[in-house]
This record gives sequence, C-alpha cells and structure tokens, in this order.
Amino acid sequence: MLSDIERLYSVNAMNMKRSVIRDLLKLTAKPEIISFAGGLPASETFPVDDLKPIVAEVLEKEGTKALQYGTTEGDDILREQIIKFMAADGVTGLTKENILIVSASQQALDMTCKLFVNPNDPVIIGLPSYVGTISAMRSYSARTVGIPVLDDGMDMDKLESEIKRLIKECGPPKFIYVIPDFQNPAGITLTLEKRKRLLEIAYKYQVLIIEDSPYRSLRYDGETVPSIYSLDKEGHTVGLYTFSKIFCPGFRLGWIVAPAEIINKFVVSKQAMDLCTPPFSQKIAAYYMKEGKLEERIKKNVDLYKVKKDAMLAALDKYMPKRDDLTWTKPEGGMFLWLRAPEFINMDDLFYKALENNVAYVIGSAFYVNDGGKNTCRLNFSYPSLEEIDEGIKRLSTVLKEALKEYEGK
Amino acid sequence: MLSDIERLYSVNAMNMKRSVIRDLLKLTAKPEIISFAGGLPASETFPVDDLKPIVAEVLEKEGTKALQYGTTEGDDILREQIIKFMAADGVTGLTKENILIVSASQQALDMTCKLFVNPNDPVIIGLPSYVGTISAMRSYSARTVGIPVLDDGMDMDKLESEIKRLIKECGPPKFIYVIPDFQNPAGITLTLEKRKRLLEIAYKYQVLIIEDSPYRSLRYDGETVPSIYSLDKEGHTVGLYTFSKIFCPGFRLGWIVAPAEIINKFVVSKQAMDLCTPPFSQKIAAYYMKEGKLEERIKKNVDLYKVKKDAMLAALDKYMPKRDDLTWTKPEGGMFLWLRAPEFINMDDLFYKALENNVAYVIGSAFYVNDGGKNTCRLNFSYPSLEEIDEGIKRLSTVLKEALKEYEGK
Repeated sequence: MLSDIERLYSVNAMNMKRSVIRDLLKLTAKPEIISFAGGLPASETFPVDDLKPIVAEVLEKEGTKALQYGTTEGDDILREQIIKFMAADGVTGLTKENILIVSASQQALDMTCKLFVNPNDPVIIGLPSYVGTISAMRSYSARTVGIPVLDDGMDMDKLESEIKRLIKECGPPKFIYVIPDFQNPAGITLTLEKRKRLLEIAYKYQVLIIEDSPYRSLRYDGETVPSIYSLDKEGHTVGLYTFSKIFCPGFRLGWIVAPAEIINKFVVSKQAMDLCTPPFSQKIAAYYMKEGKLEERIKKNVDLYKVKKDAMLAALDKYMPKRDDLTWTKPEGGMFLWLRAPEFINMDDLFYKALENNVAYVIGSAFYVNDGGKNTCRLNFSYPSLEEIDEGIKRLSTVLKEALKEYEGK
Repeated sequence: MLSDIERLYSVNAMNMKRSVIRDLLKLTAKPEIISFAGGLPASETFPVDDLKPIVAEVLEKEGTKALQYGTTEGDDILREQIIKFMAADGVTGLTKENILIVSASQQALDMTCKLFVNPNDPVIIGLPSYVGTISAMRSYSARTVGIPVLDDGMDMDKLESEIKRLIKECGPPKFIYVIPDFQNPAGITLTLEKRKRLLEIAYKYQVLIIEDSPYRSLRYDGETVPSIYSLDKEGHTVGLYTFSKIFCPGFRLGWIVAPAEIINKFVVSKQAMDLCTPPFSQKIAAYYMKEGKLEERIKKNVDLYKVKKDAMLAALDKYMPKRDDLTWTKPEGGMFLWLRAPEFINMDDLFYKALENNVAYVIGSAFYVNDGGKNTCRLNFSYPSLEEIDEGIKRLSTVLKEALKEYEGK
C-alpha cells in the first residue's frame, strides 16, 4: 500500500468533513423509527406517470441529441423555459446568457466557492444554514463568518458591523450567502425590508450576494416576497435554483442566474469540472416544462405540503409542553421547521434518547459553523405521512418532557 | 454593476482558461466543412431503440427510487455490474468500497485535482495529453510537469529523472497522470514493459498513478495490454473510467476505482460537490448492463470504428505526400490519430487555411502545457462517415502540399 496517503491530500481535502447528518441518518433507517431527519421531498410528488410518455418522446424525437455531449451552458429549450419561469416570478429581461444549467444546487454551491474563494477568504453565512453550503465552503478552506438568523431573517445590523470589522482586518468578504425563502433548516423568510437593506449593504461595500432559492416556489401561506435578484438593479446577485424540490431530485438539475459576465466565468469553470450537465435529463425537464406540467406539479406539491406543515404545527401545539423557552418557527413554506428547546437541553445528546423512543430529527448544531445550536433541532414535514407526523411529534414531546423532568429533578 | 468583478475571483479561477478547442470548434460547424476536430462518438452507436424499453422499465419498477436522491457512492446494482465488467478485464477482488460512480471522467479529473492538488504542487502529465485534464489541473493551479509521449508511451527515463529533480527542488509530484490505452490525442498505447517500469517508479518514489481509461474497451487490433490497476499490487493506482465512449455521453456517467481508503475520501469530497450522480441515469445504465447489452454494444462500436480507423489510415497513405518528416500514428484503438508535419509547418496557422478548404482538425499545441506541438494535429475518425474520411483527408493533403510548396519556394 502507498505509505502515508494522508500526506498527499490537498489542504482543502484535509478541511473536508464527513457529513454528521449523513452518519446520523444511517441510525434512523429502522422501519420502527418515525424520521423527521431527512430532507427528502415526498416520493408521492414524483410525476412518474407523466414522465413515461415524455421520456419516450425525448428518445423518439431527439434520441441521438439527448445521448450525445451537450454544450456547457445547457440545453437551449430548457434555458428558454427557465427564463419564462423566472419572468413569472418577477425577474424580467433575462436572456440565455444569464442562465447556466448545473447539476442541482449543490454543484452551484461548489462552483460558487471554486470561483470566488481562496483559502482563508472570509464569506458570510447566516446561522443556522444549510449544511451542504457549509461543507462546500470548508472544501475550499473558506473562513466562514456566521451572522445570526432571527425570526425575520439575517440580523442586518450585525451583518454590517461584521463587514466593517472584516474590511479593517483583512478585506471585505467574498460574498454574503442567504437562503431568503423558508430557509433550510429553520423555515425562516427574509422580510422585504431586510432584502432591501441587504442590497444597500452589498452596494455600499461592493459585495456579492449569493441567493440560494431551493424552496421559493413552495409557499403555503402569506404573500410572496420579491426575490433579491429581482430587487437588485446593480448586478450584485447570483441566484441558485434547483428542480429537486419542485420536480424531483433524481435528475440532479438546477440553474444559476447571474450577470452574463459572471455566467461566462462559471461556464469556463464548469468545462473543466464535468463538461456539461446530462443532456438527456435536461431534455426531459425541458419537455416537461414546455407542456406546462411544472406549474401543475408545484401547485400539487404546495397543496400536499401545506397540509403536512399544518399537521406538524397542530401536533406541536397539541403535545409539546407549554413554556416560553420551548418554541418553534411557523414557516410559510419549504420543508422544515426549527425547534428551540430550553438552553439547558442538549439536543445533540437527546438524539439517542429520541431514537430509543423511535423518533428522529437532525441536530441543530450541524447547521452552525461555531458551537451554537446545541439546544435546537430541525424537523422535516415534507416526507412523513400525516399519521407519522402526529405520532412522531407525540413521541418527541415525551422525550422532551422526560428531559425537562430530569433537569428539574436535579 | 458590481465594480471590478475580477478582484473577487479566486486565484484558481484566474488560472482557468477558456478552451481553445471549444472556440475553434465553433468555426468548424458549417455544413460544408468535413470536421476531424470533434471528439464525439458516432451518434449511430447510441442504443436509442434498446433504451426505450429499459427506460420504461426503470420508471415502472423503480420510478420513485430513480427520481429521489441517491447515495453519494452510487447505485448498488450499477457498482456490482461494474465490478463484473472490471473482473472481465483482469481486475479481480474488487468490492463496492472500491468503486465510486461519478458524472463521467471529467468530473473524476476535477475530483482528483481537488483531492490532491494545492496551488503550485507539481503533477506529471504526458505530452501531448487530453486537454480536459490540463484544464482541470490549471483550475487548481497545479504546476504541470510535461513528459514526452513516445510511440510506445511516456518516456520512462525522462519521467524518473524529472521526479528526481522535483524531489530535490520541491518534493515529489502529487501524481503521474497517464492515459495508457489509445490515448487522446495521439492514439498511443503504453507498452506492458513500460507499465511495469511505471509501477516500479511509483513504488520507488511513493507516488500515485492516475490511470485514465476512457478508450480501453475500444481495441481494434493487437493484444490487450493489462491495465496498470490490474498490475499494481501495492495500491498506488487510481483508475478513471467513463461510459461516454462505450455507451453514450448524454448520461454523463463514469466511475473511479481505487483503494477503499481513497474512495472514502473521494466520497466526502463529492458530497460537497453535487451530493450524488443522477440516480435516474445510474439505474438506466445498471439495467442496460444487467441485460448484457453493454458487451454487445462495445462489440458493435469496435466493428464500426475499426473500419473508420482503417479508412483514415488508407486515405492518409493514398493522399499524403511521402516524406520522412510527415508521419502519423497507427492506433490500435480509440478515436484519434496524430499527425506530425515537418517542423517548419505551423499547424496552428494552417488551421485557417484548412477551413478555407472545408476541412478541420484540432491544433496539436492545445494538448501541450509548454510551447510544443506546433507542427502537429489531432484527427478524429470515430465521428465522420467513411466518405467524409476519404474526402476530408484528400482536402487536408492538398492544404499540406500547398504549405510544403510555399515553404520550398521561399
């Protein structure tokens, strides 16, 4: 065997960490466990029957094209459809030069870090935030600077003071990463007022905003808030979108929307990364959208997930002990809500107790880049059934009640 | 607009170069031009009709699984099929822990550089070599150290002396990159003797070998030479394989074979890069292989490409001026051959003259990391028809004859 393989790995590779969530998820796989730990869309939303004729049509009409190499930028028809989709969401004036098809948003995150981050470059991330973003940042040895996410989104005063501090210390951050709509993990939405303030800050300090929008179309209550990209008149925003939550994850498809100059640089980078996203999957998505099926699908997903989200909120109200230091977010969309237990409860430790009670969640600390979040957890409502939601929350409340009793008995 | 976006890009991003080939290829797209410039497999080899029932079956039997997220490691059945495929090629004793499914070999190259290369780390590459590898290396700011590829493969004496020099100067190279079978661009195969010598060198200096094998199954003449991976008893080799040339490129599927410890590290890296390769495409490939169709397909490809390769060699013999300083390789497989014009002919300049004569090639200098290759070019025989091969080589010989006449008239 090659002696001491470790010495050959790059510094970035040494900074990569195996996903904690992934290892915990393995423990939740037993059939008797009701899991709120996954981040999966419900399989019943996958349009298997709609896809049968579409896939056959792609092979029939464009088989040899769909099976050949494609351009790095992505399928023309798919990009045209995405332009229409974005226009319906208030982003007008886009051309194909503003769109790059990617292999879902995790690739977009990797590409974003590769394009902008040198080792130790500061980047700003709200806390808690999607663990896959933290992993991507680590894999380029970024210096992750966390800003608290409040119930109306990132703390903008703290953001501005941190940027000022960084400028003095080592220069401005490379970008501010935000998930403005029903963010993973907390289900929190950034208010319109704060979006405007965020743009002002970005303009003032000449910083880029990375707007990650995997859940944006999945709104169940309240009014749509304009995307940061649509509010930005100065070209400071790069938008990341995915088909995983509104269509299905199995094709690994998403897109980046950005000023043409930045897209052009992403294209050069992607050439060396994988040449292109699978043309076969792109054609399927393009035909699916062209037939107007995506809007239908999103409507159905929204109907299904709204009921599940309401069921989880109802179960929390019904079963959880009533106390001011035990709270949870009330998301208007997305797939997750966020439970904050009293400060003295360690949800990392309680995870194993929950497993014994046949219920699982994701430990909140996984979504932090510092030591925060130990008293929090993420609960997914999109995947479990209504019955599982009720029973699972009941089990979780039992676990919490016991932990509270134990603490109070001390 | 964000002022001076360039200042935000990473050092690696600044080292990325737009593919010269890509820009030249755009010039070759006119219908009247016979192009030997592409690197595409022939569309007539794509099993469109075989795929129709298979894709329907995947959706019918495993639709919700194929459309959901998959594991980072890859589909279990696909990895089992690959283990059988590798065993038939002399690599025995593999388990699923030795295989990682990737989004074709360009991703494998990107992942390899990400895992091993710090900026300015030396890596060794044969010259000429696949331009996508050079791009991947550049995108991590590697120091590319070129070793000449002779007609029987990389110059091993030169390799050893360069490694010695590097060790003195800055430490051993991170890896030696080789395409041992019918390499792109020159169609050259590394002899068995040199493969053994390469392994001795790798053992002696404790260096990793990256064995890139996109064309290995496409042998038209002569005897199969054992893969380096199969000869290596010390775990120094990482093998990169792709379905692009033996099945079709449109699914973007390939695999890495390596010691489990290295695969494990690749998995952690891939988690942060794209979570997983599309499960839908993986299932299709798995079913295709399970039904024994891949072997059939490879046989058909070999039959088709052998005729095309022979046709190109025959046309070169027929039309090219006979002189000692005008030669070409005689590949036993793959998709390319390599033409070496006299030293005083600049094939970069002649490219435009060729276009005027409605024939195109790829300039050889694109496959070098130094100033080499100016008198060379790559000719693809897999994509054009037999008629196009004959007529195209005739046109190219006219261009060369005129260039020779012009030089001699000076």
